[in-house]
Amino acid sequence: MKNIVILGATGSIGTNTLDITQRFPERYKVIGLTAKSNDAKLEDLIKRVQPKLVALQDENAAHALSKRLPKSGPEVLSGQAGIIEVARLSDAALVISAIVGSAGLLPTLSAIRAKKTIAVANKEPLVMAGEIIQREAKENGVTILPIDSEHSAIFQALNGERHQDIQKIILTASGGPLLGLSVEEKTNISQKRALAHPNWKMGPKISIDSATLMNKGLEVIEAKWLFNMPPEKIEVVIHPQSIIHSMVEFVDRSVVAQLGLPDMRTPISYVLNYPKRSPLDLPSLDLAALGTLTFEAPDTKAFPLLEIAYEVLRKGDTFPSVLNAANEEAVQAFLEKKINFGTINKVIEKTLETHKPTSAKTLENVIEAEAWARAEGKRWIKYFAI
Amino acid sequence: MKNIVILGATGSIGTNTLDITQRFPERYKVIGLTAKSNDAKLEDLIKRVQPKLVALQDENAAHALSKRLPKSGPEVLSGQAGIIEVARLSDAALVISAIVGSAGLLPTLSAIRAKKTIAVANKEPLVMAGEIIQREAKENGVTILPIDSEHSAIFQALNGERHQDIQKIILTASGGPLLGLSVEEKTNISQKRALAHPNWKMGPKISIDSATLMNKGLEVIEAKWLFNMPPEKIEVVIHPQSIIHSMVEFVDRSVVAQLGLPDMRTPISYVLNYPKRSPLDLPSLDLAALGTLTFEAPDTKAFPLLEIAYEVLRKGDTFPSVLNAANEEAVQAFLEKKINFGTINKVIEKTLETHKPTSAKTLENVIEAEAWARAEGKRWIKYFAI
Repeated sequence: MKNIVILGATGSIGTNTLDITQRFPERYKVIGLTAKSNDAKLEDLIKRVQPKLVALQDENAAHALSKRLPKSGPEVLSGQAGIIEVARLSDAALVISAIVGSAGLLPTLSAIRAKKTIAVANKEPLVMAGEIIQREAKENGVTILPIDSEHSAIFQALNGERHQDIQKIILTASGGPLLGLSVEEKTNISQKRALAHPNWKMGPKISIDSATLMNKGLEVIEAKWLFNMPPEKIEVVIHPQSIIHSMVEFVDRSVVAQLGLPDMRTPISYVLNYPKRSPLDLPSLDLAALGTLTFEAPDTKAFPLLEIAYEVLRKGDTFPSVLNAANEEAVQAFLEKKINFGTINKVIEKTLETHKPTSAKTLENVIEAEAWARAEGKRWIKYFAI
Repeated sequence: MKNIVILGATGSIGTNTLDITQRFPERYKVIGLTAKSNDAKLEDLIKRVQPKLVALQDENAAHALSKRLPKSGPEVLSGQAGIIEVARLSDAALVISAIVGSAGLLPTLSAIRAKKTIAVANKEPLVMAGEIIQREAKENGVTILPIDSEHSAIFQALNGERHQDIQKIILTASGGPLLGLSVEEKTNISQKRALAHPNWKMGPKISIDSATLMNKGLEVIEAKWLFNMPPEKIEVVIHPQSIIHSMVEFVDRSVVAQLGLPDMRTPISYVLNYPKRSPLDLPSLDLAALGTLTFEAPDTKAFPLLEIAYEVLRKGDTFPSVLNAANEEAVQAFLEKKINFGTINKVIEKTLETHKPTSAKTLENVIEAEAWARAEGKRWIKYFAI
């Protein structure tokens, strides 16, 4: 029996994780759950899995939930301190980090400091503070397991291989719902079209990041830290069918890839069972039925944020943190219909232009850069407001 | 420095192996070579790598070569006994088994009994006597490394994985030069067309086996023994571009594949360096440049030998040995223009029909069935002669 904590339990990764843990109650026990503000959904999850401890970031939501739960129910903590307490829960063997955005940074670090094996679906902390997270993971003897389908693919392809034998990492990208459109055609694209990912059903933030290819840019930075690879050894190839989830080329020109139907339950099952695997009753990949897989080089003119992510990664320091925060602000503003789709990258570019970087070796600098970028990003959002 | 013996050194695998060993003289020393009858080519190889011992199956060729070599040259042995002596060469760390056809059986077994790590490009011995080879390998603590691109792909995909986590093995097949033609269209196809493999440059026997898909059938049987998989867990999918070399589906529906440009030097380099890898200066796979990979189910009507191979594998006993011997005879007869292309499968079917199987647990039975099948096959070749 493996005791599991899910940070960000009400989101897409949380829901998929619970789908698996509930199929195998003899194998997994979910002992802690956290969410941002959705107390109704968290209440539902509490009924299903009966955890020991839960937390809501939102104080009011926590208070409301606490009042509704029966005496036999779990304790309800609140705020970031509450989420961190769940992340450190003493009997947990595995922490699933699935909080959306940079809010996952401190809970992720807390779980690492509490020596928990951590499965990361939340890429932003690695983008912001990859060096710190890897340093602390090393110091605490913690294994970091990727959940993102691309990084799970790379992790699986590296099974049994030596780091020095890697020639390069090749991340596949579906290209998102706006593949093939020019910058001009995308300027005023509707939310509905930008959110309509062709292959994956995901939350709104990552769906917009897929439409701008910022998601792939963040994954490039994530890959650098997860696999200790320099940017020039990380490539992106557009593969609209999302069947090959990513690849590793080795020094002998052998390429190992992980494939599958687009279903997050496979990489989630992988981290739940690592280093073993466990049967999962899902449809098999049938390549003969699919017929065709296609590939093309990414059009960096149509997707400027991918190239910007590479630049930011090469520059290092607090630039990735600023990129991430400005992106979060810009995407939020687009979802709130404050700015056009075509303005997302402008907000990010302008914010990066005015940033004065500091070293990303300390958490203080990272958090400070993040706060600065949010304020600066908001300034540019006002400037570019519809 | 790794001491290497190459059985079947003058063929395509032998030549490719020497290409690598000569690129890295500080890493590999080729100490033994064998060939069937091509003494001129073997003489050339001797000059290049200066082995300690060589052998030619053909006595006359061996005698002629021996007379031409200088006093400082290697000893030249002859006949099967000579080849076996090279296969058992005492300082060899790795034996590359690349003899064409069933002639490789006894040398392969001898290398195993001499406790050599053995890299197998020669699939016929495994088809005929897979159970015996695996039993002896186990008893002698010998690792068998596959060279065939498909089996190398599976071997690489299984790196770090547990056998019980395998759902199925998926062998890819180019479909060969006659993909898309009906049985009728293929009946009188020319040698030239049947030999013109679209992706791989190989010897004539395996090229014809690719045109009939018998090669894939033999690979299915080979996979059964190499990976201890029942026939129902081995699938074949047609993939004309030969980029995905094969795949493994695991129980969690994750599929791991090995890809690369069609170049045997990559799997050969893999066995030379296993479990490490070593840089090889070959072009990288560029999926964006390739653009499209396609897949289709094999048409067993157009390629009856694939289905026959499955039947033979399910039946077991000496049937695989008979399949292989009848196929070798039929292909040889086709290459000698004695029978039509469309008669190859008829010779095999007729021979299988009249076979009275015995257990394939003993070498005597296997060899006896093989001899019987060759005689019976020859009888049907005469019957179907042009």
